[in-house]
This record gives sequence, C-alpha cells and structure tokens, in this order.
Amino acid sequence: MTLVCYRCGREAAAGARCECGEPLWTAVDAGDFSWPDSRQRGMWRYADLLPAGPPPGVGSAAGGTPLFRAPRLDEYAGCALWVKDEGRNPTGSFKDRGSAVGVARALEAGDDWVGTVSHGNMAMSTAATAAGAGLDCLVLVPDDIPQERPAHIARYDPEIVRVEGDYGRLYDESFELRGVRFVNSDTPDRVAGQKTTALEVCEAFADSRPSRRSSRADSEETDGRDAPDAIVAPVSSGGHASATWKGLRELREADLLDTVPRFYLVQAAACDPIARAYRSGAKEVTPVDGGETVAYSIANADPPSGNRALAAVRETGGAALSVSDDAILDAKRRFARRAGLSVEPASATTLAGIRRLSERGEIAPDDHVVAVATGTGFRERSDASATPREARMEDLSRLVRSLVPGSSG
Amino acid sequence: MTLVCYRCGREAAAGARCECGEPLWTAVDAGDFSWPDSRQRGMWRYADLLPAGPPPGVGSAAGGTPLFRAPRLDEYAGCALWVKDEGRNPTGSFKDRGSAVGVARALEAGDDWVGTVSHGNMAMSTAATAAGAGLDCLVLVPDDIPQERPAHIARYDPEIVRVEGDYGRLYDESFELRGVRFVNSDTPDRVAGQKTTALEVCEAFADSRPSRRSSRADSEETDGRDAPDAIVAPVSSGGHASATWKGLRELREADLLDTVPRFYLVQAAACDPIARAYRSGAKEVTPVDGGETVAYSIANADPPSGNRALAAVRETGGAALSVSDDAILDAKRRFARRAGLSVEPASATTLAGIRRLSERGEIAPDDHVVAVATGTGFRERSDASATPREARMEDLSRLVRSLVPGSSG
Repeated sequence: MTLVCYRCGREAAAGARCECGEPLWTAVDAGDFSWPDSRQRGMWRYADLLPAGPPPGVGSAAGGTPLFRAPRLDEYAGCALWVKDEGRNPTGSFKDRGSAVGVARALEAGDDWVGTVSHGNMAMSTAATAAGAGLDCLVLVPDDIPQERPAHIARYDPEIVRVEGDYGRLYDESFELRGVRFVNSDTPDRVAGQKTTALEVCEAFADSRPSRRSSRADSEETDGRDAPDAIVAPVSSGGHASATWKGLRELREADLLDTVPRFYLVQAAACDPIARAYRSGAKEVTPVDGGETVAYSIANADPPSGNRALAAVRETGGAALSVSDDAILDAKRRFARRAGLSVEPASATTLAGIRRLSERGEIAPDDHVVAVATGTGFRERSDASATPREARMEDLSRLVRSLVPGSSG
Repeated sequence: MTLVCYRCGREAAAGARCECGEPLWTAVDAGDFSWPDSRQRGMWRYADLLPAGPPPGVGSAAGGTPLFRAPRLDEYAGCALWVKDEGRNPTGSFKDRGSAVGVARALEAGDDWVGTVSHGNMAMSTAATAAGAGLDCLVLVPDDIPQERPAHIARYDPEIVRVEGDYGRLYDESFELRGVRFVNSDTPDRVAGQKTTALEVCEAFADSRPSRRSSRADSEETDGRDAPDAIVAPVSSGGHASATWKGLRELREADLLDTVPRFYLVQAAACDPIARAYRSGAKEVTPVDGGETVAYSIANADPPSGNRALAAVRETGGAALSVSDDAILDAKRRFARRAGLSVEPASATTLAGIRRLSERGEIAPDDHVVAVATGTGFRERSDASATPREARMEDLSRLVRSLVPGSSG
C-alpha cells in the first residue's frame, strides 16, 4: 500500500504526515471501479477501494447506514433534505467505518494491539471493533475527561490510560509509541474506511436512476440526479471531511459522477478554526482558543487535517461555516420532532448550517442536500421536558376526547 | 386487507382478537413471492408482503439491520453464532419495523393520531415514527414508570399520559379509545412490520448460495445453508415472536426455505410465563406473578400473544426457556467484550439461552444460530467498572512497554 499527499503529491510507504507537513492518505487507483453487483450490504461492498478485508465481529457490520428523505424538515432547511444516519453504525457513530479498516489492517499485519487518542465516539468505536476482532486496545484519554465517559468506553474492556498533558501533543506522540498501532482520527486507514459514507450516499442516488438494472422504489425522490447537489457534515479534526472528499474524488476518477456534490463543513461558533480560515480566505488553518460548546464531539481547536478539510470545501465549491449553540440545539430538537431522529449536538450542526446556507442563497430550494448525522443521541441524557398528563383508567376516554378533535363522534 | 386467526383460521375484517380469543394477524398470499431484485435497502424491499408503503421520515429507513458472524463467541455459545443487530434500527430496537407499518397504515387511512401503551422501546419508536410522518402520537404509560423514561420519550414530542390502574387492562382498553389508532405490541400491523427481521435473516443466508446471481463476499461463512439452523429471540408479549414465525411461514409458503429454522424463545427466569407453559406441556400460557429482572423490557407476566408464541416454538421444533439474571448479565458482558456489541439486557437473554441449549444438546456445535439482539445498550448507564491507569506524558512510553509484551524491542 502506498500513501500519498493530497497537496504536494509526494508518495510515502508509511507514516502519518508528508514531508510538507500535511497528512497522508492511501493511494487508490479508482479508474476501473464501478458500482458493485454484489448484494453484500455495508461498507465492505466497496472492498475494491479499501486496503483490507472485513475483520471478525462488529467491524464486519460497519456502514450500510440508511439515507432517507426528511420532507417535514424541507421548509426549515430550505431545500429537499436527505439524512445519512451514521448513528446506525455498530457503536452509534461514523467512527466505526474507520475503526473497521484500522483493525482489519492491524490483523493483516499481525499486530496484537491497536490504540486511539479520544474520549468519545472514537474511543468506544475502536475498543468495540478491536474486541470483536480479538485485538487488545489501548485508549488514551485526557485527564479532564467527563466522569461518565470511561465507563462507557470500558464496556468493551480496553486498557484506558488517562494522560496528563497537552491533548494535541498526545495525538502526535502516540504514533511514536512502539507495539501499538494508533488509529487516530485523520490517519490513512481511518480516512480509507470513512470515505465509504460518501460512496454509499452516491450509490443510493445512482441506484435511483432508470439506467440502473433494478431501480429503487423511491426513484422519483431523487429527481433523476446521480448524486446529491450538496453534502453537509460537521468537522472537527478534519479526518472525516478528508474521507468524504476522498470518496468523492475516487468516484469522479471512476467516472461515476457527472458533477461532484458541493461539500460544506459546519463547526460550532465557540470553536471554529476551519470556518474562520475559510472566511478569511486563508489557505491554512490557525489554531484557536476554543471555548465550550454543546457540540462537544467537534470542539477541536487545532485540527490536524484542518488544511485538507479547507481544500475539500474550496475544491468542490462548498464552504466552511459556523453556527451558534442555540441554532444547534434548535436543529437537534427539529431532527427529533420532524424527522424522528435523535442525534448528538455535533450532528445537528448540519441542519443548522443548511438553514444558514439557504438563508444566504448558497443552497437553493430545489437542491437535494444530504445532512450527515454523524452520531446518535441515545447516549445522551434527554433534555426534553416531560410533564405527562395524569389520568385514572376510567377517565381516559374523556381525556382522549379532549385531546383529539373530532373523536367524540 | 383481511385478518386471520393463526389457530382456528377464522377471518375478520378488523379488530385485534378472533372470536376464539387468540390474536389476529394479516392474511398474506405469499405463494408468488420471491426474493426481490430491487437494490432497495431496509424492510420496505419486502413491500409485496406488507400491507402499506413507507411513511415519510425515519419510518422509511426502518430495518435493513446487519446480520454478522461473531466467531469469538462461538465457544461460549457452543455453535456458529450470528447476530442480527436490531439495535441498528432508527430508535435502537426492532420496534421500529412495526411502528413503520402502523404509522404508514394510519397515514393511508387518513388518521391523524396513532398511540401505544408502553414505557420503553415501543413508546420511543412509535413517537419517533409518528413525528417523522407528521402524525400526532399518544403514549400511555403506567404510573410506576421509571423517572428518566418520559424525558427519553419526550424527545419526539408525543402526548404522554400516565394512567393509574392495571397495565394489562390498559393494553386492551386502549383499542376502545376513539380517534387514536393504537399500534400495541401484538397488533396485526406491528406483527406485519416485525416479520421483516426473519425475511432479512433468511435472505442474507440465501444471498450466500452459489445459485444467487451475485454472491456475497462471505459466502463460505454460511456453509451452503439457505437459512440458519435456528433463530433465538427474547420474548415478552409474544408479538415479536409471532412476527418472526409469520415471516418464516410466508417464506415456506413461497418455497424459499428448504427447512424452516428452529425457533427458540428466551425469558428471564423471574418472569417467564411462556417458558413455564412450554416446560409443563401446556397449550395455553397462564399469567404469573412476575418478579423483578434486569431484563426489564421483557418482563410481561401476562403476554397477550403468549399462546401464539408457544405455537411458534412447538411447530418449528424449537423451545421456550428461561435464564437467570446472572446468566443474562454474563452474556451481556460477553457480547460487548467478544463481539463489540452493546445490548440491553433483554437482548442478552439470547446468548445466555443459546449457551443453555448447547449444554442441553439441543443446539449442535456445527449449527448456525442467529441471536436476535432486539435493542441497543446505548441508552443504559454503563455498569462496566472503569478505573483508568494514570500517566504523565513523559512516562507514557514506559507504561506502554509494561502493558505490551515485546514492544520494547
């Protein structure tokens, strides 16, 4: 397997970074790729574009998440809204796709240990995927990790080490530790796995075209498009953003996309180094002093793949933007109340961002736009206020008559 | 649409129960059914066997959950273990399949309200599916509902009414309330939706056979079978059990199964009316005084479809059995640590039950057995004890050397 730098094109046999300082990703020849005939579900149907085969356990079942229309959010979003529900991965987030490739590559290399630097979704994902495949797992967490998190990660029985010191430095230094293969958020293996989200989105659109052998029942919904007009995702380290961009580039190389969807990235205003760089026209992302945000999963003040994320939105004609915590929480409630989807706040940045982009005229009412809902809201305490009505059994029909107009007839 | 009684064969146009007292289900002519060519994912690919089409929102994305091998549990289970991960439905449980059909049917009938009697997975599922489709939703909960539950249900903004009185009676009486279509756990629409789990399991096996046009990459894993040897699920009301049985019957009628898998149902020993009836050779289930169990989702002391569940296991050559809370918790831990899967305790009864059946010789080491993991463990507080090690950044490499044998080289 060869690695390559997206920016300067230099190749390398190993390592996380190019000589030019930018992150490397896997070199793939996608020229001959076509949508697979296989009936296999999940991310492993794209084996031809992946650097490994499925590992045993949940890693074999990563991806294959649904893409669905949420028409009751169209007005709020200002477009035809689709949701790619990444919460339906094995541990509830898109991270499982990257963990699956990371663990599979470790198995193939004969490694016994994988590791990650994370206190959230990526830690759970890596630990679960390793457990399913029989690898030991080392999770390095910061010393200010919220109290309840280690117990969630511990379900899968990894070795957890709380490390005192700078978290950003820990990310880089972990690669120097011997005996453990670190699958951090923007490493080539993780990026390779996570690009499959973009492949699935575009294949679902392609499936709806009349030219496809067996069309989907909901073909009219995509209105003849072979891909969405835009894809909108939250961004933190830039690893996931890089992956989506890579997936789109490979499909373009394979001649499977007439037009590459515009790619938009959203951050929380309290911690938005990538959006700031975009707004200022800078080519490189400068670290910020990040503040607190409800979207805790994406509060990365010094994103290791920030420049690559910036390149992704520029080259696809998209943008990076930031939204307030109030807008995020409002979007989160609407996802639940008008699509039936419970997401973590980071995922809700997408809907808040789409609304903003529509207001600015960058997304048009007839655009088909995919919001990538990166993680489930199930692990969160519900902030919905519940004050149930009370009734005795014998009073129930009267109560229902008062609630349901026309039910007394 | 016609309803029919599984036991006496009487038909009815509407209602939940046959004159003979047993629950009705939807009459389906499956004779001409064949595995669909469509590339559509999810439960709606079986539209030919369903009484409605997909509703807008998450209901359109129900089902399509992965089936995967968990080889690191084979020894514990005593067979070749497969997991059908129903936690990967939109609200984290198999209930979403039935809610989707219930809501779709309400939409087609022009109803404005759907309802359910539940304090757990079914309440969340019905409320979310209704929200995605724009229907109002009424959730009736018992007055002893655990304190945190209403807030989880309230995310999707249904009308929640806490009803004082007997919970079993409430289930029956809800059908008499005018103006609200109740989709309770063993109603025909819910059963129709939930049968798709069995269809998906068997289609995944069928896909692996050489005769299928495009075989799956993991075809060797099923060892030439067109269906698993056995399917094992938890049982509570008997609605889900009825649905699985119905799915298998329809596939048999369509001549898509050489042999019908043996169907096993598992209960928690503290509340096991169906397992008791099975053990005693009774034809009917007698209500029990149910005790407390960790498997709170399946503690139904007076199951409305208990007799139908009993018929399901007897006619397929399976069994109903019960397992202790200790066995359930042990199985739950092993699901996480050896497959990478976090499940709620009710789901873990399957693995505990399979182990028991293997010990008794009812499941053989070369049997391919599917455990239906009915609901996610993400909403639960983790009971894993986490006592992370501590390290300063500069001591990390030394710590890793002590943890990882051979890493010092």
